[in-house]
Amino acid sequence: MAAQHTIGIDLGGTYIKAGILNAGGKLVHRTSITTEAEFGFDHVFARLVDLVDILLRDAKLERSAIAGIGFGTPGPMTRSLGVIHAMPNLPGWENVPLRDKFREATGIPVTLENDANAAAFGEFVAGAGRDVRNMVMLTLGTGVGGGVIINGELQRGAMDNAGEVGHMITVPNGRKCPCGQRGCLERYSSAQAVADRLVEAVGAGEDLALPSSGGSTSAGRGSSLRAAIDDGQDITSTDVVRAATEGDALAAQIWDETAMYLAIACVNLQHLLNPERIVFAGGLINAGDKLLTPVRTHFEQQTWRIAKDQPQLELATLAGDAGLIGAAALARVAGE
Amino acid sequence: MAAQHTIGIDLGGTYIKAGILNAGGKLVHRTSITTEAEFGFDHVFARLVDLVDILLRDAKLERSAIAGIGFGTPGPMTRSLGVIHAMPNLPGWENVPLRDKFREATGIPVTLENDANAAAFGEFVAGAGRDVRNMVMLTLGTGVGGGVIINGELQRGAMDNAGEVGHMITVPNGRKCPCGQRGCLERYSSAQAVADRLVEAVGAGEDLALPSSGGSTSAGRGSSLRAAIDDGQDITSTDVVRAATEGDALAAQIWDETAMYLAIACVNLQHLLNPERIVFAGGLINAGDKLLTPVRTHFEQQTWRIAKDQPQLELATLAGDAGLIGAAALARVAGE
Repeated sequence: MAAQHTIGIDLGGTYIKAGILNAGGKLVHRTSITTEAEFGFDHVFARLVDLVDILLRDAKLERSAIAGIGFGTPGPMTRSLGVIHAMPNLPGWENVPLRDKFREATGIPVTLENDANAAAFGEFVAGAGRDVRNMVMLTLGTGVGGGVIINGELQRGAMDNAGEVGHMITVPNGRKCPCGQRGCLERYSSAQAVADRLVEAVGAGEDLALPSSGGSTSAGRGSSLRAAIDDGQDITSTDVVRAATEGDALAAQIWDETAMYLAIACVNLQHLLNPERIVFAGGLINAGDKLLTPVRTHFEQQTWRIAKDQPQLELATLAGDAGLIGAAALARVAGE
Repeated sequence: MAAQHTIGIDLGGTYIKAGILNAGGKLVHRTSITTEAEFGFDHVFARLVDLVDILLRDAKLERSAIAGIGFGTPGPMTRSLGVIHAMPNLPGWENVPLRDKFREATGIPVTLENDANAAAFGEFVAGAGRDVRNMVMLTLGTGVGGGVIINGELQRGAMDNAGEVGHMITVPNGRKCPCGQRGCLERYSSAQAVADRLVEAVGAGEDLALPSSGGSTSAGRGSSLRAAIDDGQDITSTDVVRAATEGDALAAQIWDETAMYLAIACVNLQHLLNPERIVFAGGLINAGDKLLTPVRTHFEQQTWRIAKDQPQLELATLAGDAGLIGAAALARVAGE
């Protein structure tokens, strides 16, 4: 039998997700195991090698049926060398020649990709971008990651650093970013930033200056989240969205600004790349239409009307499977 | 003899520039004529057909030596149909099937491209980007145009509208743009915007609030350009650069902001596309190092340091020939 299937592995600090795509690009088998990252590189590597055997056994496929294995991994790498330089939350993964080492261990060609790019490519081939040729994805999680696909090809740039949409400067001389820049999109529109901005604004008393919201859960003056913050509880973007929905004026303002900055980023992607579609992924899209509707509204307000080149704005559809599907699809591209 | 040369035609409202590239991509002949746009479409079209004959005669080439003709034209078009929808400053060019009509008239295959893209591709193949594979050009003239080249290919996007770098929103809710948006890069960093911003600031008395510059040409209080503005004279970006150099505080501030916004645009291009080089063209680069040095300084201040993926920032080298060279080079690409 010709090698027509590919395996995708999404390697994270807590879980390893993996799956097999058939020749038609359909996910025919998937599984996940814990990473057990704390036991170091050799341990995780052995688990990865075993995982391939398990996948083959469970999917009832011969090793010769697999044309390639694709990895999606966090952290810096040099793709041309197949080397992982480091991985956040995976101790001991310093300057690992994963591509060659894993090929030797499994007998199957290996390709590496960063996890944000792999997830974007997954949505492109099998999710929210499956019917277009040009797509940008923005993954709104702890940070803002992304991926750019043009004419069906994932864009990596001259030094494998394309698609860092979260570090586009959206507000000149704006909020400080751990990356060293100011005003990065990530500091306004990641899930983390939504929570951070609310906590900071309450700390600065901004909620007290806003008109009373009249929200049913609001107790006394200020934001409905003030008591929880004063109590030392962690605030998440989910809390902010809920408070905004329930009429909290400060939360509503921050949520609206979040949507506006995302919309401005979309305008910039539109004019630079003219993609058919921009797809949002990551934890923040759990808000569903509460995110998509204001982003679309702000986009209509911010973009020009002199040309009909507006991209469609959509939510990702593959959730946690995007990375492994994209990695498997990229393994096929690499083998062509 | 095999058809190995290509012709490039840069069609503007005042001049038509044209040239011939040989098989090695070298410009072996060039010429220019006035457009005489005011006489309408048929007249200009006849001049273009004659121009091809003149080029062939002067370069001593047979018609059969020409593999293709590329046009760089301003205004909206549909490339897939080869139709020009309109051209600023060329009356009568509405919905013209230029590609097919010119092919019929000359017997040579024709390809159309917008002028900003053609100029960017010209710099890429023969100018400031000739030794790289990934380049973005920003043309700083009346507006800000541009072009994006990735892996050696000019990017047009899903609807032929990629590369509109001038309409990336650089300042959220900033200056109004004729395009309908707010805060476009073009409203801060085009040659026109540099002059406009100075005139507006003087009109608002901002120069009077700044500390005295001590510049040698400054007469009395305020900007050294105030008298000329009050006198109804046209102010250009060249005037602003000269005043800034001579110590005019307001002019220096506006020029510095111009460089800062260009630098921010470069950071955003860096993170999205990771090109090796960003090239500046257009009238504003007549300022030379007075432009490039502050843009580079601001870029170093604005960009991250966590990766070594900074593009080189350079000035274009082909001046007025970029468009015709790019158009001729694109005619070759189209024929391959």
